[in-house]
Amino acid sequence: EILAAIEARFEEHPQLLKGRRVLVTSGPTVEPIDPVRYIANRSSGKQGHAIAAAAAAAGAEVILVSGPVQVPDPRGVTVIHVERARDMLAAVEEHLPTDVAVFAAAVADWRVAGEAEQKIKKGPSGTPGLSLVENPDILATISRHKMLRPRLVVGFAAETENVVPNAKDKRIRKGCDWIVANDVSPATGIMGGDANTVHLVSAEGVEDWPSASKAEVARRLVARIAGALA
Amino acid sequence: EILAAIEARFEEHPQLLKGRRVLVTSGPTVEPIDPVRYIANRSSGKQGHAIAAAAAAAGAEVILVSGPVQVPDPRGVTVIHVERARDMLAAVEEHLPTDVAVFAAAVADWRVAGEAEQKIKKGPSGTPGLSLVENPDILATISRHKMLRPRLVVGFAAETENVVPNAKDKRIRKGCDWIVANDVSPATGIMGGDANTVHLVSAEGVEDWPSASKAEVARRLVARIAGALA
Repeated sequence: EILAAIEARFEEHPQLLKGRRVLVTSGPTVEPIDPVRYIANRSSGKQGHAIAAAAAAAGAEVILVSGPVQVPDPRGVTVIHVERARDMLAAVEEHLPTDVAVFAAAVADWRVAGEAEQKIKKGPSGTPGLSLVENPDILATISRHKMLRPRLVVGFAAETENVVPNAKDKRIRKGCDWIVANDVSPATGIMGGDANTVHLVSAEGVEDWPSASKAEVARRLVARIAGALA
Repeated sequence: EILAAIEARFEEHPQLLKGRRVLVTSGPTVEPIDPVRYIANRSSGKQGHAIAAAAAAAGAEVILVSGPVQVPDPRGVTVIHVERARDMLAAVEEHLPTDVAVFAAAVADWRVAGEAEQKIKKGPSGTPGLSLVENPDILATISRHKMLRPRLVVGFAAETENVVPNAKDKRIRKGCDWIVANDVSPATGIMGGDANTVHLVSAEGVEDWPSASKAEVARRLVARIAGALA
């Protein structure tokens, strides 16, 4: 219903992003352990898909790079479906240059070293240890891209504690322009839910946005993006 | 459409399992690493849900214990939704005794030792090692249950190599009556797909069933179960 709400208002949207090219990532990444097992992040894709839909409604040409989610592809958006963080980064790089990039996906920080080609059998040798290696950092990579950095790079920070301080650190560390931060502790109901409570962290400071539907947060973010590009 | 196919034929099914109580598990289990990350198995739940639906269509009282899946709850079935293997075992034990138990779920063999209460931060200390501990073995536990072992216990073996030999070993090792074995290598398209090619391994030997829809495999298995109980 989030996408429907945005699409229903398609015609009444001012074309704030007309002529702009916007890349959005959404959903989780899935990192295989073997052909049947994997590590992933919980991410419904609702917020990222809502942002892509809102940008399209505002007249932008939108590329959405999404991990596996249950929400449908938004109307009027070019959608690239990926699984692994490495595939997500490759898809993102392939679609630069853009004016804006919004990295809303919950990318797995780590993947398993040495993905097994066959199913790992439970044997008498006991439990396997999973050794992890760091995944590429998509937000940092694009924020520091020498040739093709988008004018505006927006990251997300899903935290369960110290939300705003962590988001401020993250903005500096990654080299992006804005961080949209939220508290995804299970008690908030934000993860997988239809509402969101976010803080917009920029060089100018921190804005605490009121709780709203993910569709409304998306529209508001798109309006702010249009303002920043103007 | 698998469930719809079974439900459409609801009335024409002979009541082969009338008066019987059947427990089915389906889907993956999800083992949390921290509030946002988890380990899971790929499992659509299509085959397990089809078996539950077929057993209900054959007149059985059916309890379906399912991990997170996208397929809808089958009609006329009591569905218990769980995430972790430990929760799945607890739900199964709570619903014994039954005449039959069919363990079609893809239960994670391992979970992460010491689930973190807060999101694990990516720090300068490098990548965390995940140490794994063995999950309870639901199939073996119920197959060897002293008081409440169902008359017929059916396990599943999703393999990517040596399908039938692995399934034969598994049947003996777990103490169950039958193993439904299939090859879930990505190239087969079985994982997540609507068709299945299975081998039924019992004390009498191995039957190679022809490729069929998961609904048809479910009907055939239910007919065989009814025969074994008669």
